[in-house]
Amino acid sequence: MKVLITGGAGFLGRRLAMQLLARGTLSGPDGTPQPIDRLTLLDIVPAEGITDPRVACVTGDIADPAVTRGLIDAGTGSVFHLAAVVSGQAEADFELGYRINLDGSRAVLEACRAAGSRPRVVFTSSVAVHGGDMPAVVQDDTALNPQSSYGVQKAIGELLLSDYTRKGFVDGRILRLPTVSVRPGRPNKAASSFASGIIREPLNGEEAVCPVPPDTSLWLLSPRKAVECLIRGHELPSDALGRQRAINLPGLSVRVDEMVAALRRVAGEEVASRIRWEPDAAITRIVASWPGAWNPARAEALGLSGDSGFEAVIRAYMEDELGRPA
Amino acid sequence: MKVLITGGAGFLGRRLAMQLLARGTLSGPDGTPQPIDRLTLLDIVPAEGITDPRVACVTGDIADPAVTRGLIDAGTGSVFHLAAVVSGQAEADFELGYRINLDGSRAVLEACRAAGSRPRVVFTSSVAVHGGDMPAVVQDDTALNPQSSYGVQKAIGELLLSDYTRKGFVDGRILRLPTVSVRPGRPNKAASSFASGIIREPLNGEEAVCPVPPDTSLWLLSPRKAVECLIRGHELPSDALGRQRAINLPGLSVRVDEMVAALRRVAGEEVASRIRWEPDAAITRIVASWPGAWNPARAEALGLSGDSGFEAVIRAYMEDELGRPA
Repeated sequence: MKVLITGGAGFLGRRLAMQLLARGTLSGPDGTPQPIDRLTLLDIVPAEGITDPRVACVTGDIADPAVTRGLIDAGTGSVFHLAAVVSGQAEADFELGYRINLDGSRAVLEACRAAGSRPRVVFTSSVAVHGGDMPAVVQDDTALNPQSSYGVQKAIGELLLSDYTRKGFVDGRILRLPTVSVRPGRPNKAASSFASGIIREPLNGEEAVCPVPPDTSLWLLSPRKAVECLIRGHELPSDALGRQRAINLPGLSVRVDEMVAALRRVAGEEVASRIRWEPDAAITRIVASWPGAWNPARAEALGLSGDSGFEAVIRAYMEDELGRPA
Repeated sequence: MKVLITGGAGFLGRRLAMQLLARGTLSGPDGTPQPIDRLTLLDIVPAEGITDPRVACVTGDIADPAVTRGLIDAGTGSVFHLAAVVSGQAEADFELGYRINLDGSRAVLEACRAAGSRPRVVFTSSVAVHGGDMPAVVQDDTALNPQSSYGVQKAIGELLLSDYTRKGFVDGRILRLPTVSVRPGRPNKAASSFASGIIREPLNGEEAVCPVPPDTSLWLLSPRKAVECLIRGHELPSDALGRQRAINLPGLSVRVDEMVAALRRVAGEEVASRIRWEPDAAITRIVASWPGAWNPARAEALGLSGDSGFEAVIRAYMEDELGRPA
């Protein structure tokens, strides 16, 4: 069976690829385990450091229908559609956001429809589909009310995936990811980039800027758990989801000052003191529009789980990315 | 000021055009009344029977960006975006529905963005954006959960119009129309076509088929009131809507057997006996997925009103379309 990861050179895409290669199988469209014969990683840059013979790295524009049609055919059993322009960039570059996040998602879905193999499609959505007047804890049936272009584009992707699923063109699963923290690497243009930066940079001996007030609540999931949820979400029987294809993934509701306190406990005062507080109105507005928590009951009933605490998340980051047990 | 009606040759579009020509003015982007110097009616067929010198009838494909860009410029103050492939047709022809209802709406919004005049855009949405597990009476914050491709396309249109409004590219107003009944003319491919046909055809001496069970609840608005709401919705100050650009228009919650009873009272037993009950599973499924009522409190607070009763709706139809007072 062929498997495609869009955004395959990204941080989550690469981690997911490694896990899939280690597993070796995934449930096929009929629900039975199938060997992964070919794993294609599509991105705008080549995925680095993956040398498995089953892997093909393809660079291309996901919004170009010729690209997606060339990568999805009757042998494609699974698509993990992670490619996206991140929140801050989609807000700053209106056209790019719609081209990648809307046209790109449509191109993936249209290629699946044309292929006719009814692949399982895992689509990563976001806290950003919620916003405006919300209950303190967002429920599964809380109305989507995105307050950013990124959130609108993710909400549209959800609607499309649900309709393509209802029509039998794909078997879609929408996983609404909390903010993923702690991400390795460098800051990006996501409005939530600081949620990793304020942990990662101080641990690397660098200063980090926190652009939101200390009492800002975030809903977080660690990279390990995010990848685990992507695979478990893929493996769920289609009937377990019914007509509601979206799942709010479990997260940790943590205030930014609690994150810093956890860093201080794990790594000490000197590390924690490398955070500078410089409120940024634009970032604060976007982040404050997201829910600080949602009810993860449905996800947990489906066997998807989050992290036990933010200290453990920091320790896992240090193990996985810095190679030093904390 | 230039005004554009997409779907201008359709039944609501033509009625709206007549009303606008009679008024002669609309609020411009800055809120002050402006004369309507030019009223363009875009449709796939020419609008018939409108000879006012201010009117330009244009036939063209709304999903072709060259068409919409050619009709919307810096002088455009208002767009009534009514053009759509109806529910039954969008369900039967997947590609056509997405092309007209999604690509067409985007083409209109992109042309407005390019024009830079920040026009008021009135977008007609639908009961069909709701569905699935709903409260008995849908509230303003009930989650959109469309169960048809048409409903998905309308929900996407709503999200886009809200985002373009938030970004300042247009001043959008989304009016969620109840099922409009009684429409004149012939049956169309809307799943709700029967909601007019079971009144119109018997009054014309013809047999009508009712494809849904007698106890099906519908949420109805008359053509007169629908056009009135489109204009009032346009005239609302932008601030009155705030961030929530969608308004659930007031309607009448009526069961199909109550509609027939009203017809019997207005026109007699012989007329009412011309209805044949032939349940159609596909139509029943779509119609049953729509809400039978929603809370119109916000619309009413904004000065938008519905009909007083279905008998009065039938009488208004007879006056307006048959030229005979009932």
